[in-house]
Amino acid sequence: MLKPSTRGDQMPASPIRKLVPFAEEAKKRGIKVHHLNIGQPDIETPPSVMDAVKQADIKVLAYSHSAGNESYRKKLVSYYQKVGITLDAGEIIITTGGSEAIVFGMMACLDEGDEIIIPEPFYANYNGFAVMAGVKIVPITSHIENGFALPPITEFENKITPKTKAILICNPNNPTGYLYSKEEMEQLEDICLRHQLFLFSDEAYREFCYEGTYTSAMQLEKIQEQVILMDTISKRYSACGARIGAFITKNKEVYQAAMKFAQARLSPPGLAQILGEAAVDLPDAYFDEPKAAYLSRRNVLVKRLNAIPGVFCPTPGGAFYVIARLPIDDGDRFCQWLLESFSHNNQTVMLAPASGFYETKGLGKNEVRLAYVINNEDIDQAMDCLEEALKAYPGRTN
Amino acid sequence: MLKPSTRGDQMPASPIRKLVPFAEEAKKRGIKVHHLNIGQPDIETPPSVMDAVKQADIKVLAYSHSAGNESYRKKLVSYYQKVGITLDAGEIIITTGGSEAIVFGMMACLDEGDEIIIPEPFYANYNGFAVMAGVKIVPITSHIENGFALPPITEFENKITPKTKAILICNPNNPTGYLYSKEEMEQLEDICLRHQLFLFSDEAYREFCYEGTYTSAMQLEKIQEQVILMDTISKRYSACGARIGAFITKNKEVYQAAMKFAQARLSPPGLAQILGEAAVDLPDAYFDEPKAAYLSRRNVLVKRLNAIPGVFCPTPGGAFYVIARLPIDDGDRFCQWLLESFSHNNQTVMLAPASGFYETKGLGKNEVRLAYVINNEDIDQAMDCLEEALKAYPGRTN
Repeated sequence: MLKPSTRGDQMPASPIRKLVPFAEEAKKRGIKVHHLNIGQPDIETPPSVMDAVKQADIKVLAYSHSAGNESYRKKLVSYYQKVGITLDAGEIIITTGGSEAIVFGMMACLDEGDEIIIPEPFYANYNGFAVMAGVKIVPITSHIENGFALPPITEFENKITPKTKAILICNPNNPTGYLYSKEEMEQLEDICLRHQLFLFSDEAYREFCYEGTYTSAMQLEKIQEQVILMDTISKRYSACGARIGAFITKNKEVYQAAMKFAQARLSPPGLAQILGEAAVDLPDAYFDEPKAAYLSRRNVLVKRLNAIPGVFCPTPGGAFYVIARLPIDDGDRFCQWLLESFSHNNQTVMLAPASGFYETKGLGKNEVRLAYVINNEDIDQAMDCLEEALKAYPGRTN
Repeated sequence: MLKPSTRGDQMPASPIRKLVPFAEEAKKRGIKVHHLNIGQPDIETPPSVMDAVKQADIKVLAYSHSAGNESYRKKLVSYYQKVGITLDAGEIIITTGGSEAIVFGMMACLDEGDEIIIPEPFYANYNGFAVMAGVKIVPITSHIENGFALPPITEFENKITPKTKAILICNPNNPTGYLYSKEEMEQLEDICLRHQLFLFSDEAYREFCYEGTYTSAMQLEKIQEQVILMDTISKRYSACGARIGAFITKNKEVYQAAMKFAQARLSPPGLAQILGEAAVDLPDAYFDEPKAAYLSRRNVLVKRLNAIPGVFCPTPGGAFYVIARLPIDDGDRFCQWLLESFSHNNQTVMLAPASGFYETKGLGKNEVRLAYVINNEDIDQAMDCLEEALKAYPGRTN
């Protein structure tokens, strides 16, 4: 039988999805599984944006412009203006989710064998996009003790080689929830300027900042032409399934290069562009409710976690994730055990082992990521489960 | 200013889109431009499939399964059964258009530097996907004299090297409209079996075959595990903007590898999957009308073309394209001249220079591709323009 390519073999499997069969088995046994493992919000997609799709009068669902509908890109300019980012429509390419924006960035700015520095733990799918682009990820470890703040800039300096073309950050961060300060962003600006590196900034969680001040990479004035903003409406409007994102750059040559990748795949999804465009018209107050819900959940989750003996969880400033350190031998084993061998009041909890978010082997073994995308009552029940589980788990450490 | 990657520079620009500014200028001067240049059908998207989206009751537009909704994949099994292809749902990955299916195929089956043989002229965007995957396209020239039939299999043999991993065909063909015969498909089966190559089969135009018998690569029994079927609903249901396609293979290891690429980008477009699923329920007779329309247009177009002195156009068996040989020096120059310097009754015609579909430099210079995606009356007017243009064009040859 013909075999897949080496690239196909090297492509990492999702560190979260491998637990899915165990969750399915648990459910078959009648156990309620609290899903804290994935970033799929339970927040309702705004009905008015769904209605925009329903009301659209489309005779022929034709290819759109490869950069996305001009009307949508023009509207996005006003959205970005509101969040303090000044753009024009010709600096935006609408993409198929944030995923495609990241692929376009890696393809258009890096060559096979080039290196990109990313603070770890990081969003695991960056690995997959790097394999697709033949790019090497060079990790710099951030630490739970200081809430996963930006590692000292000297550590970045030490990792820069002639192959280094870019630094990638996710702000606010998935999986840590950390919100980079203005000072940290300026440190990144400085190093990118001195070493002539691209700064890739994944700002998928921009709307969900609870403390501190959000600074977009696009606001770093000295490196305006070095920044690639990777964006998505998935989390902003709880529309993950729409698959609409954006690749944004003020670097005209990079924009032209990215447009060629966009043209090859013809156009982004047409129906979902209507949804995205309508979402720009939501009142500013739209975000108040989901943001308040997430903040309240974060507070409940962090408080409950830190009240469990042996558990440490910093309080992150944004997104809807936390990473917690648990008194366990191995997060992968523990998360599987939770699904396979444990229940409390006929319930259990599904978590994401943090090891999958670290590039450096062996790190994050006693850490898990929790997404607070379920309501407070369920979070409380999930924490009851976790508390009991940590008493019963055979691999508990001290 | 930071520069794009070498890959970004090498990425080919769309050979069709570069003429767009000239068409826009012509329209500004009040000239009606008949668009025979792109494969965007004018056929109405079936209202019932658009209604399925409108009637969907979605509270949270969540990520779907990375392989696409199971309900949709199960339905597709019945669609494929009707067209003579036996599959199960676990052999299908729903993709973002046919484009993504091709990228998945190249990524999962070929490594950087590997070679793929494609009969030329071929769909120009294969070049872009090959650049993304770092794969080298090795062309084998097909010829207008025999209607762009499959080149002799000895020519394939001669091009096979240790780096050759796959042969790619588009059947029925874009840009030639050629429909491969059962015998030709069996020749491909034989060579793929003997040399252990993948056969990538882009069958986007399956529904539009006018003469002869359509043979899917999936029906080649000796190479069941070597075939990758790349499909799309874009042309089938005139839903190009939906961005729904499919990657299909019976090779379990390749399927697993492709699934990892699918997981990295999370899921295909959600709203459009509803449309795709509803389309499977269209009555079998649905295709009668668009197929009859295309056939009638093909007949008008081919007849008109061959009636123009110095023009030769074979009659293709499928898809909705023809390639015609014109008495001109250079198709790129001629197509630009049509938009820039010519009009007849205040009309002109936009064609695709065929040079962009050939990998071998210098080929196709006196050929153009015409897509019959406009009605017969407009085709007639467009042919009036072309006939007059060929009398007036300064670069006319004999």
